[in-house]
Amino acid sequence: MKLLETNKCFDGVWQRYSHASDVCRCEMTFSVYLPPGCSAAPAGNPSKDRKPALLWLSGLTCTDQNFVQKAHAAAAASAAGCILLVPDTSPRGLGIAGEDERYDLGTGAGFYVDATQAPWRDGYQMFSYISEEFLALVNEHFPVSPAHLGIAGHSMGGHGALVLALRRPDLFRSVSAFAPISEPSQCDWGRRAFTAYLGSDDTDWSQYDACSLIRKGTTGVSRIRVEQGSADNFLEQGQLRPEALQEACENAGIELDYHLRQGYDHSYFFIQTFIADHISYHLEQLKHPDTINAGQLQTGLASR
Amino acid sequence: MKLLETNKCFDGVWQRYSHASDVCRCEMTFSVYLPPGCSAAPAGNPSKDRKPALLWLSGLTCTDQNFVQKAHAAAAASAAGCILLVPDTSPRGLGIAGEDERYDLGTGAGFYVDATQAPWRDGYQMFSYISEEFLALVNEHFPVSPAHLGIAGHSMGGHGALVLALRRPDLFRSVSAFAPISEPSQCDWGRRAFTAYLGSDDTDWSQYDACSLIRKGTTGVSRIRVEQGSADNFLEQGQLRPEALQEACENAGIELDYHLRQGYDHSYFFIQTFIADHISYHLEQLKHPDTINAGQLQTGLASR
Repeated sequence: MKLLETNKCFDGVWQRYSHASDVCRCEMTFSVYLPPGCSAAPAGNPSKDRKPALLWLSGLTCTDQNFVQKAHAAAAASAAGCILLVPDTSPRGLGIAGEDERYDLGTGAGFYVDATQAPWRDGYQMFSYISEEFLALVNEHFPVSPAHLGIAGHSMGGHGALVLALRRPDLFRSVSAFAPISEPSQCDWGRRAFTAYLGSDDTDWSQYDACSLIRKGTTGVSRIRVEQGSADNFLEQGQLRPEALQEACENAGIELDYHLRQGYDHSYFFIQTFIADHISYHLEQLKHPDTINAGQLQTGLASR
Repeated sequence: MKLLETNKCFDGVWQRYSHASDVCRCEMTFSVYLPPGCSAAPAGNPSKDRKPALLWLSGLTCTDQNFVQKAHAAAAASAAGCILLVPDTSPRGLGIAGEDERYDLGTGAGFYVDATQAPWRDGYQMFSYISEEFLALVNEHFPVSPAHLGIAGHSMGGHGALVLALRRPDLFRSVSAFAPISEPSQCDWGRRAFTAYLGSDDTDWSQYDACSLIRKGTTGVSRIRVEQGSADNFLEQGQLRPEALQEACENAGIELDYHLRQGYDHSYFFIQTFIADHISYHLEQLKHPDTINAGQLQTGLASR
């Protein structure tokens, strides 16, 4: 693991690392925010010193840097004592033909699936990368409490967060999303990517479709928070389909905290407005013994 | 004036515009944050509805977008009811030989001076652009209260903020800076730029050097806030010279609120950590009848 950058921020530190990924077959980059009093690579790591953490998955075209620079998450993470884990959105530079041709396929568009189709299957294994290799790496090097780990994301990353939480409730104890691609099997972005990565038989797609997973039941997830801007152009285009997620959750008895925000769009200006609410939501679900509640978080933000 | 982009953020809106500048001889771009309840181009603009505003000047290599994306200023500006005005750092695309060769001269490096030397003098007139053309434009189109206008900036923009405030206290009623180039006549960045823009006779430089202006006296400025990171590599290189500013202010009887922040660097991670404190500082100085005090700002930030 190679430290690329370190910047003090709200008394904690943003760090950027790269590491050789076996799963993705390339050097992968990620960022981590360590709140005050929390150092990298602790010797021993007694579990009582391990902190709650939120894993963030970004959307199409993003690297780890979009969230780091634009989401304004450090203030709340600092006040709450929460680690932020921010991986990349795909392998990079594998040399696969066409990997850089489209913004919604290949580089920056891994869709958090394990591809089964050539040429993508050699490296485009983002489901396994996030849930196995990346989590093992950060658990080893940072004082993350594995029992207090939440997952969130935006757009394609919102899809990823929902699917990872629904399939791996043993790993992720809370989940939220901003403008997620809720039913990728039924929208243009998802159908194109799934056809390329998973093949044209759409029965193989359901394991990566949040609505399909919820309809099947037995997910272990009882609550989901979703933030959606009413002026989001991808909502109008039918790429996001929150109505399908609402219906699936209602039928499955999953509590969906759905917040439609008037006038907000798909950008990080929308995310920064509500990121503190999401961090607070995760901490309430995660119930780490050392973390503060929502009221204390607000007081912490205010006392700066 | 052409609207390029508009994004709702913390119940207000970031807008980006371009306009044909007579002073800079090119199309200039700027951004503005309008807090909730504050609309663009109001008809009539009765002075009682005009809001306090903070003009932000950015540093070398920046456009208006660095501050907009990375400074995380909207939360505090929204809570405080403060307009943010963010111009560009130089003319662009004038076709002057060498304008794109160096990061610290020409494009992105206007240094907020009115150049007197060929080839720069045709367009590189950022002092006049900011203090005259840009302010007239924003006063016409946005509900800015001219009597409640502060100025702040970072690095080269910190230099610009200090010089504009010291020379035009009739326009700017409060001033602060992050890691400003405090004495450009005595550092490499400043000497190179001033030689190119103003000529080699350094007696012509003093009108654009904050320390020289303060030593001459009669500035009308009684108080300045400066934030400086202790781990700022440009501090070590001698580009910033806060010690010269401290000495000049002490001799002139100017109150300098100088905050040396341990471990912070020159980046926007440093700026985002303390931007709410600066907005609060300006509002206290500006004393707009409708704005809130620092305690109320904290409560406003907390109640989100």
